[in-house]
Formats: sequence, structure tokens, C-alpha cells
Amino acid sequence: MENTSMNGNMEEEEFEGIEERDPERNPMNEPLLKRNRTLSSNPLALVGAKVSYIESLDYEINENDLFKQDWRSRSRCQVLQYIFLKWLLAFLVGLLTGIIATLINLAVENISGYKLLAVVEYIQQERYLIGFLYFTSTNFILTFIASILCVCFAPTAAGPGIPEIKAYLNGVDTPNMYGANTLFVKIIGSIGAVSAGLDLGKEGPLVHIGSCIASLLGQGGPDNHKIKWKWLRYFNNDRDRRDLITCGASSGVCAAFRAPVGGVLFALEEVASWWRSALLWRTFCSTAVVVVVLRAFIELCHEGKCGLFGEGGLIMFDVSNVAVSYNVMDIIPVAIIGILGGVLGSLYNYLLHKILRVYNLINQKGKIYKLLLSLSVSIFTSACQYGLPFLVKCTPCESSSLQEQSSSCPTNGKSGNYKQFNCPNGHYNDLATLLLTTNDDAVRNIFSTNTPHEYQPYSILIFFTLYCILGLITFGIAVPSGLFLPIILIGSGYGRLLGIIMKPYTNIDHGLLAVLGAASLMAGSMRMTVSLCVIFLELTNNLLLLPITMIVLLVAKTVGDSFNPSIYEIILHLKGLPFMDADPELWMRNLSVGELIDVKPSVISFRGVEKVANIVEALKNTTHNGFPVMDDDVEFEIVKLHGVILRAHLIKVLKKKWFLKEKRRTEEWEVREKFSWVELAEREGNIEDVGVTKDEMEMFVDLHPLTNTTPFTVLESMSVAKAKILFRHVGLRHMLVVPKYQVTGVCPVIGILTRQDLLAYNILSVFPHLAKSKGREKRN
Amino acid sequence: MENTSMNGNMEEEEFEGIEERDPERNPMNEPLLKRNRTLSSNPLALVGAKVSYIESLDYEINENDLFKQDWRSRSRCQVLQYIFLKWLLAFLVGLLTGIIATLINLAVENISGYKLLAVVEYIQQERYLIGFLYFTSTNFILTFIASILCVCFAPTAAGPGIPEIKAYLNGVDTPNMYGANTLFVKIIGSIGAVSAGLDLGKEGPLVHIGSCIASLLGQGGPDNHKIKWKWLRYFNNDRDRRDLITCGASSGVCAAFRAPVGGVLFALEEVASWWRSALLWRTFCSTAVVVVVLRAFIELCHEGKCGLFGEGGLIMFDVSNVAVSYNVMDIIPVAIIGILGGVLGSLYNYLLHKILRVYNLINQKGKIYKLLLSLSVSIFTSACQYGLPFLVKCTPCESSSLQEQSSSCPTNGKSGNYKQFNCPNGHYNDLATLLLTTNDDAVRNIFSTNTPHEYQPYSILIFFTLYCILGLITFGIAVPSGLFLPIILIGSGYGRLLGIIMKPYTNIDHGLLAVLGAASLMAGSMRMTVSLCVIFLELTNNLLLLPITMIVLLVAKTVGDSFNPSIYEIILHLKGLPFMDADPELWMRNLSVGELIDVKPSVISFRGVEKVANIVEALKNTTHNGFPVMDDDVEFEIVKLHGVILRAHLIKVLKKKWFLKEKRRTEEWEVREKFSWVELAEREGNIEDVGVTKDEMEMFVDLHPLTNTTPFTVLESMSVAKAKILFRHVGLRHMLVVPKYQVTGVCPVIGILTRQDLLAYNILSVFPHLAKSKGREKRN
Repeated sequence: MENTSMNGNMEEEEFEGIEERDPERNPMNEPLLKRNRTLSSNPLALVGAKVSYIESLDYEINENDLFKQDWRSRSRCQVLQYIFLKWLLAFLVGLLTGIIATLINLAVENISGYKLLAVVEYIQQERYLIGFLYFTSTNFILTFIASILCVCFAPTAAGPGIPEIKAYLNGVDTPNMYGANTLFVKIIGSIGAVSAGLDLGKEGPLVHIGSCIASLLGQGGPDNHKIKWKWLRYFNNDRDRRDLITCGASSGVCAAFRAPVGGVLFALEEVASWWRSALLWRTFCSTAVVVVVLRAFIELCHEGKCGLFGEGGLIMFDVSNVAVSYNVMDIIPVAIIGILGGVLGSLYNYLLHKILRVYNLINQKGKIYKLLLSLSVSIFTSACQYGLPFLVKCTPCESSSLQEQSSSCPTNGKSGNYKQFNCPNGHYNDLATLLLTTNDDAVRNIFSTNTPHEYQPYSILIFFTLYCILGLITFGIAVPSGLFLPIILIGSGYGRLLGIIMKPYTNIDHGLLAVLGAASLMAGSMRMTVSLCVIFLELTNNLLLLPITMIVLLVAKTVGDSFNPSIYEIILHLKGLPFMDADPELWMRNLSVGELIDVKPSVISFRGVEKVANIVEALKNTTHNGFPVMDDDVEFEIVKLHGVILRAHLIKVLKKKWFLKEKRRTEEWEVREKFSWVELAEREGNIEDVGVTKDEMEMFVDLHPLTNTTPFTVLESMSVAKAKILFRHVGLRHMLVVPKYQVTGVCPVIGILTRQDLLAYNILSVFPHLAKSKGREKRN
Repeated sequence: MENTSMNGNMEEEEFEGIEERDPERNPMNEPLLKRNRTLSSNPLALVGAKVSYIESLDYEINENDLFKQDWRSRSRCQVLQYIFLKWLLAFLVGLLTGIIATLINLAVENISGYKLLAVVEYIQQERYLIGFLYFTSTNFILTFIASILCVCFAPTAAGPGIPEIKAYLNGVDTPNMYGANTLFVKIIGSIGAVSAGLDLGKEGPLVHIGSCIASLLGQGGPDNHKIKWKWLRYFNNDRDRRDLITCGASSGVCAAFRAPVGGVLFALEEVASWWRSALLWRTFCSTAVVVVVLRAFIELCHEGKCGLFGEGGLIMFDVSNVAVSYNVMDIIPVAIIGILGGVLGSLYNYLLHKILRVYNLINQKGKIYKLLLSLSVSIFTSACQYGLPFLVKCTPCESSSLQEQSSSCPTNGKSGNYKQFNCPNGHYNDLATLLLTTNDDAVRNIFSTNTPHEYQPYSILIFFTLYCILGLITFGIAVPSGLFLPIILIGSGYGRLLGIIMKPYTNIDHGLLAVLGAASLMAGSMRMTVSLCVIFLELTNNLLLLPITMIVLLVAKTVGDSFNPSIYEIILHLKGLPFMDADPELWMRNLSVGELIDVKPSVISFRGVEKVANIVEALKNTTHNGFPVMDDDVEFEIVKLHGVILRAHLIKVLKKKWFLKEKRRTEEWEVREKFSWVELAEREGNIEDVGVTKDEMEMFVDLHPLTNTTPFTVLESMSVAKAKILFRHVGLRHMLVVPKYQVTGVCPVIGILTRQDLLAYNILSVFPHLAKSKGREKRN
């Protein structure tokens, strides 16, 4: 977001005179949903393609009497159960993700394989129009299935899901994101969309699928049919769910790229907001299981038992057969690829941002428009993929120079290089090799090494241009879609193109340059480094490529960062998800939390033993999720802070009607009789559903046992920068602000800060002058 | 530490009756230095081999008026200078570490190469005694040089240095650890010790060397001859130094294993306590530079220009030539290796712990004893390495079955398999192949693939036993020594041995089993996972090995963790370095910070404008490093907390004699006239060096502008567990405890907590009953 706010500010400097102007009012920078410009923002965001009410998650440890009692009473055996189950779940997440990923692969390879075989048949018979109609209509139907499911049954399944998972792991609840519906639609939709030959990958969806599996396992099944296994109750809290979903996300990446270490690193570098050694260790376990499952299936399918699936081993795009020999001078072409990758990547981000805004306008018009959009993209894609290869000339197979390849030229089967298409025997159509195939095979073909003369520059140029267009227009449609593969396709295209141009200056193989091009574009758009490096290492199985890959990534990321934020940050901002960066902006040092509190509505607090009417009124009139609880000491006239109570727990009290006739403190057994900590962990219920009679309104509730007695606090003089560090690093939901002086009888809490209050975007809307202060750079 | 405290507790349960018994009084669990059993512990620890006074580092942002003024006044150009320099330093750290690592390799390979060539010469002439004397005396002299340097000039250079770096990055200052002396001694000592054939590696020392280079670059040179380059002043703070040292540590690992991604991950998983994306990114840059430097040197030395150095490429122990084919049933031998690795690893930790205690007793007797210890280990090592190969029978070269190897058998040059030693022509001595060579070559030979019949079980058994003994007795001597290589040697020995035993049951190559054995023992002793996995991947260049490596690591770590903590944690505890774990113990939830404060001496605070005499008295009578500063509002009789002032800044005030005749607040320009923020960043000076006259004692100081106005606070009701999370995650030095009620005129700070107060070990010494409470397991 750093750059976003800087852009906003740069524009503002042009309008220096207009003092009242909002710093981010350039429409292109605004989230898609309008917010009111106060510190308590409208908590709505786009989750998938659905507008949802979002709230924060409780990653903080809630130390109320009931939970404390539970921890104390857990026997050694129960602790072991918990630990065992934690590992079992990590294992199961890996297992199921591996199996589902293989099934998706199987389905995609078979559906699109048989489709392509039929098309090749038509072409060989020179029945070009029938071939076209067959190709287009199959793709149309597949897209229709994927799209109708997404539009009607699970809007949250549209898109990659990674931004939402990122937000969830940052502490934002994204409702309906991990349900059984979503999982089902994501699996079927992903199979449909990928088999339809659309320019999208199954990588992002697999990450989402992994997370769904993890969440469903953790809660014991779909929302309506949960298994009530008593061991599972230990996982009924946001912290453990977060850990499980991290495992799921890394398993997903691992399954997508068959890259176990890369999967762990991707989850930790890009998706998760908090890293812990213990978690590193558990995600690692999940990905190990995924790899074992994948390997087992590959072996099982090796003898053609799985239809057209089964080519290729654990390494997806193997380039290990090429001898990597490069010298110091090769750093120049490598740096050029990096720079171009950075420029193109940020350009891609910029354009995708604009197109997503336009698409959003279309999608808002209704379900039918969403569907039409997907289907027109599908028809356009099919037409291009089928029609463009007719534009290029056939190339004769080089039987003399490259003996091994020539023997297998042309291959008309599903996978393999050198497609004959419309060419006479002994010739091949190089563009058909790249277009009329699955996306995975297209990548494999363009990465193919030791084939410097296979592709004509003209074909590669067409390929590159086509996938630039498709990559931009396909991402926003209402089907499960990943970003990785489109970017790899564009990147490999320009990498190979550069290879042809720079041929006189470098000896690096064109296949390797395609790999480097793909890496550079990914770094330029997604801005990952270490995880990307490891993923590429594991994808291509060539360790000697590592140093140049690292340089390419470094250069591309640096160049990209100087233009705009990463694509995920752009999408998060666009969707209005309140994602919290790790580092505060520098201007936040010049603002104290006291000043923030001043522009907020005053805090509503309860007494330790409170009247029911007051509670109901507070819950109905506000949307606050946490309320401070105070204790009066009548004798000494002092007010003591007891803690913070959550809205969910108050609603539970009202629902259970745990009311007292007189104003008194309860005993421990009274609470435990009424509430179990298991119930307290459930987060459901709405104040509208609670019916309290007039008599009950006059009764009392003892809030003490349900109050979190150890909330985190900051002094009112604390700078917002440091408060944000506390909030983000410890993973808070509510932060109390206490006065820095001591006056008898004054309330010891002067305000509560939440995630929304600490977002740069929201603060700047109230204090626009701050963005102007000097030194906006973050001190990394 | 979890397990340490549990052990302590288990013993206690046996003595249930003795209530007052200290929970950790079993002498084997105590740090080497005695502490007084109060919450303010004696801040002494072993740094290297030197007892040092340790204090905490200021990783928290100090927001006093002067620093704030500096941030605000930094121009855009200065911010760019800072960012540019940050990257330049990361680049230079990589460059210099790469160059020095290459020089060390060059020196080691040449010294030990020529030494071994001469020995082989003597043996071929059958002058065995002369050969022995030559071998032993050369090793003796080399050890003597390494040891005398460590003992006399830089005791901090002894050992691996990794525990101290770990503590530093956790927030503990380790004095004299990163000086020019230490760097020099570490380089020369490491060359000497490794060339002397001692059973130690250059990996740990290289990590320390990288960190020294980073620290020296950051401060502009050695302590006495700093370059006063004005750009460097931005780096004169603990936060930036920490980041630089992280870069240095990862460069060191990268240089040691030629593993760039592994280096980054090792630094982040094992060494650093805080991870940030930005840092990940910068360490990655450093390691990329290291790899480029290493590669350039390897190419330069390829034609024998560097003496005996130059064999081998970027991959140290290449096993990529072996076809990895394993099936599901191979999981059993793999699991056995993992389990054995875990058991042996924790046994190794246990025994090393005991031996280090014994060595400490010897070392405490004086320098001459340290020296004698090193020299006797050297003589023992030489005698074994030279003598043991005579015990085994010569093996004839298998010219029939393995044609490629046989053609080069025997190799008597420095490196290579199949040494002739004392055998007739056409025969080789397999134990000499492993012992009479450099450690790196020994690893390469035992990892050698497709050679199932090269080693006799008897030879491997001798090798394994010898290195078990050497690995235990060598680590604690006063030379720079790394732990990685000894563990790899032991592990590869038993891996190969298992390969011979399990031959009927598995097809996995013996060389690969040796690799897996080494990995399992490292996981069993050091308990790393992802970083170890990547390091092994990069060491051996065989990606298909990854799934089984992961399983081995997982099993070994799990088994090891059930016995004792990792070797680094044991060493940290032994040295008395107050390392703070990421996760609090569960019993800490049952204690509030208020209770901790009660057992501490009451806090000493200053008024905003304070009398000089009071300050001098407080500084002289306490060792506190932070004092709360209060403001009285006489009119309303309220006390306001202004912030916390550091001892270093108070001493600066006294030294500069910035005294006021009357009690008044100063203007901003008055402070800035006297102090610059650059001076304030220096951390030097002692209260003993300050001379204040009697008249001056009656004068006043305005502490406001030097006070950090935004200290982190917790309420007294906060649980210690959550306070520790705050302390550790945000990286604090002082945490103020504030009351939870409001009473006019009462001091708004009731205590200060520091690192020592929050260590489990220290708390348990005051509240021994807590360790008994149930549920001691951490909730990971």
C-alpha cells in the first residue's frame, strides 16, 4: 500500500491549493465499495465475487475465567490428544489435497486430451470448420458449467482465492470462503475452466482448495453436518484454524507445482502474516505428504491406466538435461530480462487493475452479465487458439541437425512438441504446438531446451501478444482462476523472443531464457523472491540455474516495486479487504493514538455486573465487537478495568438468559453450570435473534467470568506507528487506550482501537495533512 | 528450554516431600555461571570463551524529541541515501564474505593438500614412522597457531559463534563478538584448525565471519579506526545492525555450503528471531552475491591456477548422477534412518552437554590449560587418523564389476576415492580413503554413489566410532569450530553402515543412504527442518531425493524433540545467554505481571526536570538501564507518565554537563545545540567515568527531550504469558507495568520488566510451585 498512498499524494501535490481534497480521491485508487469517511468504516468487502460483511478474527488469546479454567483442567492426556490431532490434521490436509489435486489433473488431462485428439482428427481430414465448431462448442460448454456453478452456487469460489486467504491469515474473517459448497464448486469449476483451454491456471484454485479442506477438517465437516467428535472441539478457535489453513495453502501450492519446499515458502512469504518455527515445521509435514501422494499416483498411472494422464514425473517442466554454462558476461542479457520483467510485470498489474474495475461494473449488473462475460471470453479464446495457427507458415522438420527430436516430429498426440496441424507430412506448425494444447503442455513446449530453431520469431510474437490479451481479460471472469500460469505463459513467450533477438550475444539456451522470462514476469508482478526462486528450482530441476534465477528475480522485483505494489496487494485493496501491512508508514510516528481516539465515537463500557437493558441497547445501537468492563469500588471511589468482553459472548449470555435477579457477583460453579468453554468458542448468533422480555431487561448479568481479563493496552501518548506494530505483530483484535495520568474516578479506558482504525487509508481520510509530511518512505 | 524445565520438574516429582527444593537444582541443568536467585539476575554470560557483562539491545524504536526531530528533518535525498547504503552494505557483505570464504578454502585445500601429499610420499617409501611424525607435528603446529590466537587475542573467536549470534539477534548484546580482532583470529584460526585435520568444520566460523564483516562494515571499520563517513551514521543503531548481521549470517551459511537459498532459510529459521519480508529479500541479495563470487573464483581456479584448490563446481557433494528409484516400501528403511538419527542426535546433544561442562572446568584453570587441551586433542586425532588405517585389510580394485571407477583406482592425489596407502598396487585401503584426507573429501568419498562394494563394514564401523569420539571431544576446545561437519561425518558413517546392513531389503544407493544418515543426524541434533532440507538439496543437487529427505528430517526431529532441546538451545543455556523463546510456557498464564513486580525491587523514577544528585545516585546504586520519567502537575495534583529514559542517555547528559541552574523546561533549540542524534545513538560511557562537582550536584537537568515518550505498557493484571508475547514479538527492552485503577496522585508506573524478568528459568526460581501446575506443554 506504500506506493498507493504515495501515488495519491503525488497527484495531490499537483492540486496543492485545494486543502480539503481527499488524498486518495482519484477514482482508480479507491476500493470498489464506497466507504464513509470516518474512522469507523463500513465493514464490507468483496469475498470472491460476493459482497460480505467482514469482521476481525480472534487471534489473541482470550483469557477469561472459563477458558482459563479449561486450560488448567486439561489433563496430560488431553494435551497429547490435542497435539496428536494437530499433526493428524496436518497429515490429512496433505493427503486429501494431494488426492484432489491428482483427480483434478486426471480430469483436466483426459477431458482436454480427448478434445484435442478429436480436433486433430478433424484437421487431418481437412474438415477445418467442423473442427472449429467442435473445439469452440466443447470449450463453451465447459466454461458454461464452470461459470454457472460459480455464479449461482458459490460466488466465493470465483477468482484465485489467494487474496482472501491472505486476508484471513492476516486476521480478517472472510465468510463462506471455506465451506463445502465453495470447495465443490472450486474443484468442478477449476476442472471445467482449465479443460476449456481458458488462459488460467489451477494453481490459485488449488491453494484455495487446500485451505477449504483444512478448514472443513478442522471444524469436522460442512457447516450443517459437522461431526461432533469431542477431540475436534480443541480446534474450534481462530488460532488453530489459522494454522490449519496455512497448512492447507502450502499443500495447495505444493500440489500445484509439485514443489514441497516452494509450497512451504510460498505460504510463509506470501500468504501467511505470522511465521512461527512450529508452523513451518507442520506445513512442511503437509507438503511432504502431498508429494508422496503425487508420486504414488504418478507411479500408479505410469502404464497408461489413467487415460491420457501420466506423462512426466515429479518435475513438471524438466530442464535438467541442458548443460548450463554461462560466464560473467551473460549477466547483461540476464539483467535485461530482469528489467523487462519488472516493467512488464508492473504494466500487467496496472492494466489488470483497470480491467478488473471495468469487469466489476459489468458483474454488478447481475448474474446473467457475469455469465455472458465468461462465455464471450471463452469464445474469443477458442477462436484465437484455433484460428491463429493458420496464419503462420509450416516449418520442415530439421531431420539433419537435431536427430533425436526429428525422429518424433511431428507429434500429433496430446502432449509433445512439433504438432503437424494443417501442415504436410514432415512439416510442423510451431504456433499450433503452443496454442492447440493444454496450458501445461504449452509451457512445457516453450520451455523445451536444445531446440533453438523450433519456433519462428513471428509465431512467438503472436503467442506472446495473444497471451498478453488473454491474461488480462480472463482473470476477472466468474470462474476459479489462477494467476500463475497466465503470467508464466506471457513471461516464457517474451523470454524466448529475447533469446532469438539476443542470439548473437549469449550462449544461454532458449528454453532456459524462456524459464528466466517466466520467472522475471512473476517477480515483476507478484513480487515474491525466495519462494519463487525455490518454486522455479523445483519446477525445472536445474540447480545450476539458481544464481541467474536469483539475479533475474532481484532485478525484476526492484524494478517492479518502483512502479506499483504487487498484484495481490492491488487486488486486496480493490476488494476492500482491510489487510494490515507489517511495517507502519513513517508519518504514523507523528500521530498519537490519543488523536485517533478523539475522532472516534466515545467508547461504550459496561460495569462488571450490568443491567440487561444496557447490554441489549449497546448491542443494538452499535456494531462494536468488544466492550471494556469496569469495576467500581464504591468505597474508595475508584474505577478498575476488569477487561474486554466480546459481542459474541454477550449474545450468548442473552440467548442463554443467564440473568440474576439482584446485582451480585457469581461463583465460579454457577458459570460453569451454564456455559462450557466449547459453547463459548462458537461464533454465531445475532442480536436481532435475541428475544428479551421487559422483566428480564431489568435483571442483571455478571460479566466477570466471561471477560478477557488481559487485554493489550497502550498509553494515549503512544504513536500510531508503534501501536500498529503491537497490533500487527501480536495479532490483536481490540487494543485499549489508557490515559497517561492518574485521576481518581476517571474511567481507566479512553478508547478502543481496531484494525480499521489503524489502516493507513482510513487514517489519511481523517488526517489528510499527514500524507504530506516529509519522509514517506518506510524504514525497512 | 521447555524440556529442560520439564526434566527439572520430573526429578522434582521424585522428591515430592521437599517443598522448598529449587526446581532446577540438578547441577547438570544449571548454566555454567552461578546466578543469584532473584528476579534481577546477574547479567553475566560466556561469549565465545570469555565471561562478559551482557545487556539488552534497543530494537524498539526510541521516540524521543531528538530522534523524532531527526526523522522529520531527513530530506528525501537522505532517505534515498539510507536505502541505497542499506543495499550497498548487503552487497558488500556478500562480496567480502564470498572472497574470504574462497581464501579460507584456498588456504585449507593447499595446506592440507601438500601435507597429505608428503605423507603419501613417505608411506609409499614405507617410511611409516617419519610419515607419522611429519603428519602429527604439522597438525600440532597448525592447531597450536589456531589455539594460541584464540586463547590470547580473541577468546570470543573460539567455538562456532552461532549461539552468540542467535542471542544477539534475539536482543542480547554480546560484547567483543564482532570486532576486527575476532574476525582476524576467526579467519586464521579456522584455516589452522581445519588444515590440522581436526574434526571440525568451517561452516559455523564462516557464519561468524559473515556477521563480523557485516558489523564492521556497518560501523565503518574496527572500533578504534572507524571511518567517519556521514552516510554511515544512519546505521548507528541496534535495529539496522541487527539486519546487517542477519545478512552476514546468511552469507556465511551460503559460502559454507554454496547454498544460497539454504543460507537465507538457515539464517531465518535458526539464527534470526524476527522475520520480515524486506529482510528476506535483502539477505537473498547478499547470498546471490556470494554465489556469484564463489562461481567466479571456481572458474578462475579451474585450470589449476590456485595450487591444489579447484576441484568440484558449485555443488559440493554432487550425487545427481545416481538414478533415484524408490518405491513405497522404501519408507521403512527411511523411517529407520530417521528414528536412529533422532536417537543418536539427542544422545549426541546429551553427551556433548556433559563434555562441555567438564571442558569448562578445565578451561577455567587458565590459558595454558586451554592450550594443552587443544593440543592433546590434536595429537589424539592425528594418531587415530594415521594409525587406524593400518588395522584394516587391503581391498583389491574391482576391475571387473565397476569399470569406470576401477580405471582410476587407486588415487593417491589429494582428493578422490580409493587410496592406495600401505597396500600393494591394484589394491586400496578403504579406511585411509576416509581418514587420511580433508574432512570435505571424506564426506565426498563416503557420499560417493554407485560404489556399494567400496567400503568394508568393519572400516565404516571404525570410521563411525572414531568420529563419534572426535566429534564429542573436539567441539569444546579453544579453536574456531563448526558443528555441521562433525555431525555430517558421523551421520554419513552410520547411514552407510545401515546401507550395508539393509542391503537385502532396499535398492537405495549406499551413497544416498549416507546422505540421508547425515541429514537425519543433523535434524536429530540441530532440529532444523526446511532450511536443512534446502541445504541438503543444494549440497547434493538431487531434487528427486527431496521427498525421502523430508520424511527423514521429520522423523528425526520428532524423535529428537522428545528427548532434549536442540544443541544450540543447550549451548545457549550453558553459556547463560538470556535467549527468549518465541512461545511462552503454559504455566505463565497463571501468573500476572503484578506478581512479578511484587518480587522485584521497587522502581526508581525521575521527575521531568530532575536534580543532578538524584540522577547520579540512581545510576551509581543500580544497574538499571531504563528509568521512567514522570511529570507532576502541581495544580491538579496529578502525576503524568512522560516516558522512559535510557541509562546511556543519562550518562551522556552528565558527561556533557548539560545542567540548568534553575528548575525549568528547556526549549527545543537548547537541546539541539548541545546534542545531536548521532551522538545520542552511541552506546558507550560508564557512570564511573563521570565527574560531577558538588555545585553541579545541586543543579537540574531537563530530561524531557531525551525521554522515549512511547514506551510499551501492560496492565498489572496482564498474564506473564501475554506480556512475554508482547515483549518478544515486538522486540522490547523495557516494558512498563501500569495500574489497572485510577487514583489521583499515585505514580502511574508500578514497575519495569526486562528480558531477565520474563525468562522461564528466572521466574521459576522465585515461583517454584508454578512448574508443578498441570499442562506444561506449549500450545504450538
